[in-house]
Amino acid sequence: MSSSLSPEVVHLIRDSFAKQGVMTHWGAMLTGVAAGSCEITLPMTPAATQQHGTFHGGVIGALADSAGGYAANTQLMPAHECLTAQYSLNIVAPGVGQMLVARGRVLKAGRSLVITAAEVFAIHDGAEKLCAVMQQTLFVIDRKI
Amino acid sequence: MSSSLSPEVVHLIRDSFAKQGVMTHWGAMLTGVAAGSCEITLPMTPAATQQHGTFHGGVIGALADSAGGYAANTQLMPAHECLTAQYSLNIVAPGVGQMLVARGRVLKAGRSLVITAAEVFAIHDGAEKLCAVMQQTLFVIDRKI
Amino acid sequence: MSSSLSPEVVHLIRDSFAKQGVMTHWGAMLTGVAAGSCEITLPMTPAATQQHGTFHGGVIGALADSAGGYAANTQLMPAHECLTAQYSLNIVAPGVGQMLVARGRVLKAGRSLVITAAEVFAIHDGAEKLCAVMQQTLFVIDRKI
Amino acid sequence: MSSSLSPEVVHLIRDSFAKQGVMTHWGAMLTGVAAGSCEITLPMTPAATQQHGTFHGGVIGALADSAGGYAANTQLMPAHECLTAQYSLNIVAPGVGQMLVARGRVLKAGRSLVITAAEVFAIHDGAEKLCAVMQQTLFVIDRKI
Repeated sequence: MSSSLSPEVVHLIRDSFAKQGVMTHWGAMLTGVAAGSCEITLPMTPAATQQHGTFHGGVIGALADSAGGYAANTQLMPAHECLTAQYSLNIVAPGVGQMLVARGRVLKAGRSLVITAAEVFAIHDGAEKLCAVMQQTLFVIDRKI
Repeated sequence: MSSSLSPEVVHLIRDSFAKQGVMTHWGAMLTGVAAGSCEITLPMTPAATQQHGTFHGGVIGALADSAGGYAANTQLMPAHECLTAQYSLNIVAPGVGQMLVARGRVLKAGRSLVITAAEVFAIHDGAEKLCAVMQQTLFVIDRKI
Repeated sequence: MSSSLSPEVVHLIRDSFAKQGVMTHWGAMLTGVAAGSCEITLPMTPAATQQHGTFHGGVIGALADSAGGYAANTQLMPAHECLTAQYSLNIVAPGVGQMLVARGRVLKAGRSLVITAAEVFAIHDGAEKLCAVMQQTLFVIDRKI
Repeated sequence: MSSSLSPEVVHLIRDSFAKQGVMTHWGAMLTGVAAGSCEITLPMTPAATQQHGTFHGGVIGALADSAGGYAANTQLMPAHECLTAQYSLNIVAPGVGQMLVARGRVLKAGRSLVITAAEVFAIHDGAEKLCAVMQQTLFVIDRKI
């Protein structure tokens, strides 16, 4: 898997990410994109909490979902893009901290399906701790322009 | 499974839901709560979209996650509550419509684990369509006061 | 979803099931097949146990996997068939009993993907008890002849 | 995570594995056990095939399930052991080859839950290829003697 991405693909991914209302409303940032991988960072915000004030499990899952999806897009764009068919999230530690970082990577890119995995880390007082792991299936569609 | 819930438990659930910043910022509403089940409704909002303007897969998952969790809480509160250990979401149709409705129900409530399932429907021009299904494991904790 | 299946499709499904070495070695039987659904029954055998003598979680999952797959095949054959892309299994009660019965059903059949769900019941002294639930994604291939 | 296991724990794990009828009937072997990890190897057998003669998806899942479970047991025994609560399997390539090798590892061991991950490789003509990935939740019980 090459680590070089064309400027066009990087631009298309940043543009697509900026259109995800859920990510921009939370203040999530695309902090890394390379061939076959993607990193998204989310600073804590009241718009992302569960009842005890920590990151909501659904937010952890949404971040992992997007990180996996854009990891796939690095190998699909510009001709194609993908939609989530399913994801499975296991939370290994509560989402406690000032920030979440989700790192997605492609496990297998086929013509009609892409399988990815992601890890989500919670950053608490400078320490990075594994918070959740995800497995995901995406299906490939022609890129909507 | 009895369908009657004490007013105290209904109050505790509504109170807990109101503290989930992610739900209130989206404008999600607790539209149903009964013994062993819970319904959450989310009107479309720019804060819940993916890149094409439909509901984000992560939002669909978060809604299902909360619906399953509060279904479990109907059987755990007032003494206990629960945290998500894992959920698996399969999206069967895109999240297209004016509204999402997530309905969670308890499959098995044990002392330390609760297993739930949820269905998420997209409401489009008055028609309700199955959008996603979820399976979930929650672990039981003492209720934080 | 029609409940009538052509004799040809029923024959193709029975033929395919009979070629699954894992099912025949366990003594699993195809006890029901209708449009969009499938039932598989497995009498207890030493070849299906975990360390305490009950049905192994992997056996419960394999049965659910096949039940979902053949439910999909009722809508894909004769032109196509399917392979498992993923499944998620939640066990709600131990696999204790004389028999397991897995019932799969199609949630959504698309051109390239089929999404199914299955429930697995343990039959213990005549009583049927929910043992596990499964969600599954299958991808469609041309039928191999 | 220490890599040293007491001879007692290694003995208890080998003894428990030998009691899993499903593993012994397939001819599966415990080929590696260390603190927090476990490897199981399964040579191809007619008792493990799907309809095209390759390893059945349910067998791939069962192997991953056991590998994750015994990885957990390395940290639970002798006082405790575990039962599977759920697992999610994503198949990234067909189970084609002379052998499957499943490698499980503990992601987080808590008092009542253990979360693991596993990778399953297909060995085909000497080449090892990623076949599937699994995430799993196990719950801890007192060891049955």
